[in-house]
Amino acid sequence: MDPRMDRQIDFIIELEGLKSVLRRSYLINGDRLENSAEHSWHICVMAMVLMEHANQPIDLNKTIRMLLIHDIVEIEAGDTYCYDDGNMVEQHQRERIAADNLFGMLPEDQARQLMALWEEFEEAQTPEARFAGAMDRFMPLLQSYFTDGKAWVENEIHKDQVIERNEPISDGSETLWEYSLSLIEEGVNRGWLSQ
Amino acid sequence: MDPRMDRQIDFIIELEGLKSVLRRSYLINGDRLENSAEHSWHICVMAMVLMEHANQPIDLNKTIRMLLIHDIVEIEAGDTYCYDDGNMVEQHQRERIAADNLFGMLPEDQARQLMALWEEFEEAQTPEARFAGAMDRFMPLLQSYFTDGKAWVENEIHKDQVIERNEPISDGSETLWEYSLSLIEEGVNRGWLSQ
Repeated sequence: MDPRMDRQIDFIIELEGLKSVLRRSYLINGDRLENSAEHSWHICVMAMVLMEHANQPIDLNKTIRMLLIHDIVEIEAGDTYCYDDGNMVEQHQRERIAADNLFGMLPEDQARQLMALWEEFEEAQTPEARFAGAMDRFMPLLQSYFTDGKAWVENEIHKDQVIERNEPISDGSETLWEYSLSLIEEGVNRGWLSQ
Repeated sequence: MDPRMDRQIDFIIELEGLKSVLRRSYLINGDRLENSAEHSWHICVMAMVLMEHANQPIDLNKTIRMLLIHDIVEIEAGDTYCYDDGNMVEQHQRERIAADNLFGMLPEDQARQLMALWEEFEEAQTPEARFAGAMDRFMPLLQSYFTDGKAWVENEIHKDQVIERNEPISDGSETLWEYSLSLIEEGVNRGWLSQ
């Protein structure tokens, strides 16, 4: 087999690992935690459906490509719970190394492209990265809300933590942030989030 | 909430169901069956990485959008094993009804767009649909091979069935079909597929 294709196939097989990385979010209609591969799929389709709510015009295709690869680093670095502040700094270092290793499995031109997409997502400066970041946060918010606050209750999360963590949604979409705030308020009213 | 956004959110929540649709493929490094949501994610990234092997130039972004939504109908219609010939005709009718119901949850303009993408995938006539179809078949082939033929052995699959079912890979990529044939041949040599 041609060595370029060999590297591509090895990378694709390595991706299987993302299906075994568990997040803290529960499926709305299932009794299990979500994995990062199915999460990535879901927020890509979500971006297709909700793009009209972006603050600025976005290149949907770039947003989708970003979301497809945004969690791949977790195959090596694992998932860190978004309310686990202590681990977030160290997590960024682990993810940087993982990105080098994982994208580095590909032929050099492709490794560079995916690395650039991942960095753009992480830096959250472009309209596409901001909207992608909003998708990444908005989905777990929906999941927490529509499972009667299951993950919030289990992890004893406070309203302020949810607001602080999710406020970047407003950088991608003011409309979705307004909707998010209404879910958070209702979560407090129902006793799923502490005041 | 604005009724248009209401429909969009309902659709997004309905998508959770795809994470509970189990396929017949085993994860390469896991001991469970794959679900259709994580499968959809995987073949989208695969398309990004392997597009240079397409027989004709393709619009990658269209291919990815097609792959993101190609299995959504299974939320209602379920997955039919690709070697289960008897069920395939009935399955197409079930999927058509499911497409109307599921995409029909969205605002009309979006429902039409996704329906058109899904139909293009099903008809397998455009370069994008052919390459997308190749991705959809090539991944389970890799999974079967790299799990020591687990799904093939369990379902007592013959070499001829694998060739017949997967030959459309060649419509999307001759290169990947050639590689597929080498895996199938090796599967026979190792006793995972009967002659």
